Amino acid sequence: MLATAFGARVRKADSLLYFVLRCTEYGGAILRRRGVRAAVAAMEEEQFIVEEQVAKPKLRIIPLGGLEQIGMNITAYEYEDSIIIVDCGLAFPEDDMLGIDLVIPDITYLKDNIDKVKGFLITHGHEDHIGALPYVLKEINVPVYATKLTVGVIDNKLKEHGLLKTTKRKVIKYGQSVNLGAFRIEFIRVNHSIADAAALAIFTPVGTIVHTGDFKVDYTPMFSDSIDLQRFAELGKKGVLALLADSTNVERPGFTMSERMVAKTFDTIFAENMNHRLIVATFASNVDRVQQIIYTAEKYDRKVVIEGRSMVNIISTAAELGYINIPDNIMIDIEQIKNYPDEKLVLITTGSQGEAMAALSRMANSTHKKVSIVPGDAVILSSHPIPGNEKQVSKIINELTRKGARVITQDTHVSGHACQEEIKLIYALTKPKYAIPLHGEYHHRVTHGQLAQSMGVEKDNVFILSSGDVLELDGECGSVVDKVEAQGIFVDGLGVGDVGNIVLRDRQHLSENGLIIIVLTLQKYTNEVLAGPDIVSRGFVYVRESENLLDEAREVVMDALDRCMMKNVSDWGKIKNAMKDSLSEYLWKKMKRNPMILPIIMEVDA
Amino acid sequence: MLATAFGARVRKADSLLYFVLRCTEYGGAILRRRGVRAAVAAMEEEQFIVEEQVAKPKLRIIPLGGLEQIGMNITAYEYEDSIIIVDCGLAFPEDDMLGIDLVIPDITYLKDNIDKVKGFLITHGHEDHIGALPYVLKEINVPVYATKLTVGVIDNKLKEHGLLKTTKRKVIKYGQSVNLGAFRIEFIRVNHSIADAAALAIFTPVGTIVHTGDFKVDYTPMFSDSIDLQRFAELGKKGVLALLADSTNVERPGFTMSERMVAKTFDTIFAENMNHRLIVATFASNVDRVQQIIYTAEKYDRKVVIEGRSMVNIISTAAELGYINIPDNIMIDIEQIKNYPDEKLVLITTGSQGEAMAALSRMANSTHKKVSIVPGDAVILSSHPIPGNEKQVSKIINELTRKGARVITQDTHVSGHACQEEIKLIYALTKPKYAIPLHGEYHHRVTHGQLAQSMGVEKDNVFILSSGDVLELDGECGSVVDKVEAQGIFVDGLGVGDVGNIVLRDRQHLSENGLIIIVLTLQKYTNEVLAGPDIVSRGFVYVRESENLLDEAREVVMDALDRCMMKNVSDWGKIKNAMKDSLSEYLWKKMKRNPMILPIIMEVDA
Repeated sequence: MLATAFGARVRKADSLLYFVLRCTEYGGAILRRRGVRAAVAAMEEEQFIVEEQVAKPKLRIIPLGGLEQIGMNITAYEYEDSIIIVDCGLAFPEDDMLGIDLVIPDITYLKDNIDKVKGFLITHGHEDHIGALPYVLKEINVPVYATKLTVGVIDNKLKEHGLLKTTKRKVIKYGQSVNLGAFRIEFIRVNHSIADAAALAIFTPVGTIVHTGDFKVDYTPMFSDSIDLQRFAELGKKGVLALLADSTNVERPGFTMSERMVAKTFDTIFAENMNHRLIVATFASNVDRVQQIIYTAEKYDRKVVIEGRSMVNIISTAAELGYINIPDNIMIDIEQIKNYPDEKLVLITTGSQGEAMAALSRMANSTHKKVSIVPGDAVILSSHPIPGNEKQVSKIINELTRKGARVITQDTHVSGHACQEEIKLIYALTKPKYAIPLHGEYHHRVTHGQLAQSMGVEKDNVFILSSGDVLELDGECGSVVDKVEAQGIFVDGLGVGDVGNIVLRDRQHLSENGLIIIVLTLQKYTNEVLAGPDIVSRGFVYVRESENLLDEAREVVMDALDRCMMKNVSDWGKIKNAMKDSLSEYLWKKMKRNPMILPIIMEVDA
Repeated sequence: MLATAFGARVRKADSLLYFVLRCTEYGGAILRRRGVRAAVAAMEEEQFIVEEQVAKPKLRIIPLGGLEQIGMNITAYEYEDSIIIVDCGLAFPEDDMLGIDLVIPDITYLKDNIDKVKGFLITHGHEDHIGALPYVLKEINVPVYATKLTVGVIDNKLKEHGLLKTTKRKVIKYGQSVNLGAFRIEFIRVNHSIADAAALAIFTPVGTIVHTGDFKVDYTPMFSDSIDLQRFAELGKKGVLALLADSTNVERPGFTMSERMVAKTFDTIFAENMNHRLIVATFASNVDRVQQIIYTAEKYDRKVVIEGRSMVNIISTAAELGYINIPDNIMIDIEQIKNYPDEKLVLITTGSQGEAMAALSRMANSTHKKVSIVPGDAVILSSHPIPGNEKQVSKIINELTRKGARVITQDTHVSGHACQEEIKLIYALTKPKYAIPLHGEYHHRVTHGQLAQSMGVEKDNVFILSSGDVLELDGECGSVVDKVEAQGIFVDGLGVGDVGNIVLRDRQHLSENGLIIIVLTLQKYTNEVLAGPDIVSRGFVYVRESENLLDEAREVVMDALDRCMMKNVSDWGKIKNAMKDSLSEYLWKKMKRNPMILPIIMEVDA
């Protein structure tokens, strides 16, 4: 009875059932306390009648990444025959993803619905929001919409991947809208640690969605305008159905400091280091930060060098597009630094996270071809370590200190993400019915959900999703009705997706205990041993000092093989296992180690 | 002339020369500006006469670990025929030490001078100060001196390693002294995050050394007395030659908070969670913290369970020795928790650093046999993540949150190490001639050195040492005169020192790119190919989905082999290299990957 009450758009009877119950006040109450079965029974018992009606289509919100991992932000919005995709980022590998270079989202769902997909809308030019575009565009070639600097940064990427000609990009200004199928999307100015960041107002047939992207509230930004709070308020006044907002700093009380704070620190540092060279490391994409350093350098009459490929690329793009103002004659090439005394130079460089291959690391480790750290250098780390990078940052600081540099980290950075009071402000202005925290680990998003409730969102209207969840909602109610593929895809070298969990498990095993190979040549048919068994090891023990051990290991394998031969075992699998198990047991007893053991049998047919 | 000026104890002419120059005001000045050679020349030119004299023996201070790595604290003090060793800790492996379980100090220097070694003096019972004892005692069996709880904790370790019977341990009280050869060593009370921590006053023929160990100043500790500042002052009044102090928190301004602050937080948390189970994770060895939790549990009428092997061990020892007071009937066994409602329970557990095998991790991941996290549980992390552990702690918080627990981290921990003002206080009380910062990374120790200068230590009297440096000093001057072995020794399973850098490099290579094995059987003498080449891979690609690639790889290897055969190459090394190089080039071109390639040739002689 319940299942037939709805019309054509039924995807899954169970989800629908759940959904109907949840939307019904009476059924919902029982459902929450006693589960689906009890709710159906109770409703039937009470002769509860669901009115015959045709279900109106709902909006489907599908985050395809960014919730289980840090990074890899991508959210699909679907309404009938239209899908739009907000952001398309990559993630950097976790510690246990050995040898993996990047992780990109699984877009199977989008490929399966490729005819519906209208375009990508990109909130800002950070890797965790744009990095997977070159991979995804190869399979889903639809236009990309973003603000000017963001398109500029994306273009750099597309050029590298030879995709410039085949990809449509469209620059959208703040306040402008794009119509894509059932959706109209407006770009709204926000502040962040890269210029030209935008929130999106997504106007859908069921209501208005506000998707903040990464943001902070900076009332006194250095160069551009402050976040367009009035527009958020206006949208709120008219009614916002759902707010999908940044959770990064939701566990930090208060307000994120203004970029202007860093300006003061820079001024002080320049004034106090009149006789020393200055080296400032920051994120390549933090255009406003670089602008500040350049202006401070101008004030203190220093020449500026920009070093590090990614920073050179982004700053060039920003300069071309008018996002950075470079005074005449201030920039010099790195080749020219020998023509200036140290106290007349500022180097702005990548590597503030201690990345091994970045310019600052190479300077610290004396492998940089053009810059050597000298005693007296003042090195400013204008960034905080991203969680997980603390140790490598500390390592760089040690190396720099060892070379006589003074490393300055105090008050040299502000976050690009909103703290609690800023997030509350956005809730106060938009007053959404639903809260869907994005961009944070699970515990951040749960805290964000609690904050949303404190701002008046009903508990049942807070959705802490997992990547791949299909959230259906309209003005009445919302629920997760389905789950699609959303595991990250590993990129290793040029291979996309050819390294999976089995390969990673092998790498893990090899990395911890190394490897022993047992090779053996047998005569075909007779199984006579023609050569071996020989033992080869790598990453196990230092072979030259462990000859006895390896001799004993070979004995163990020989014995196992002899036993097989005596019993006329002819199944190679069994012979392999016998050798492997004996050796494994021997090594565990002897040294409590568990290397990968790989028996290989060759066959000679003559 | 210079080299003959000194007596019998000359170790190395060069170091001595350097040393003499440094001690001579005139030579020292030239030495600093222009180097050894210039200084000698200048002195001879000026007909500088060094008075004939017999050198008085000096004190030698040799840190054998703890300066390049976090952990592994061990410092030898040597005077003529006496050596004493302060602490004997282990280090946990860095991220790039794949598969390594522990790192212990290289004690070659001590073994080479074993007749001089009088004993170990241990400042407190933390792993980074005692953990290597079971390994080192097997080679250097001398008595161990420490306070009561410290000896108790060491005894647990010795028991595990079967060393209790063969090791002499002696309990020393605060204020008591031990005479060992040329040294007298007094134990002085300090505060730290384990009870019974001590600083050492080491009375030597050249002067008094103060070695703080890990310490903080807690004016209002919960259970024991405050650090014995009067004794530090008394020593200072009489004259302290050198201060070797803890640098951990030297970059933090102000004072470390008192343990009493945590007590307040616990009380609030217990009061606010009357209806929920409480789970508190902290360091196994933080006896005072556990005591606080037990007292708070008593106040709020809850039963206490201690879970996690290391914590059970240490708390049992502490209880036996009277360092923890356990009210009657408050402790229950973990088996009994089902007999009590959740709100009547507190579990105190290990795993606050997110360690994968610790009790809290197992609870969070539902692999704990006796405790499942249920919605409503309040989990208190009573610790800060040690640098490098941030991500795994965050992972645990996510898992706990996902299971419905509330995770509390605010104001639940105070550090066990002194901040700037406390370190200054110790300098103000002891007024040492020399400052030798210990227990910190390089940049911490440099900052500590600057702090020492601000407290009146002369710049040339601050020594930022490296592990293995031999610092010779007396009342006149001090300098580094030699360098001894001090690399960490890797422990992997039962193997000590059999895994070195070559093995680690292989593990690194295997972990990043996996492995391809090429096997080939050749006829002896004729080099006829009897079987293969076959290709086996692990950790490279998912084999079932990459059959084409592996077929092509085999072709490449076959071609290389054919070319060798056509040229009648008979050198196996050359054949192996030819196969390896071709395959390596092919894979790099095709997929930008670089697996380890291992060619194995078997020989059949028939």
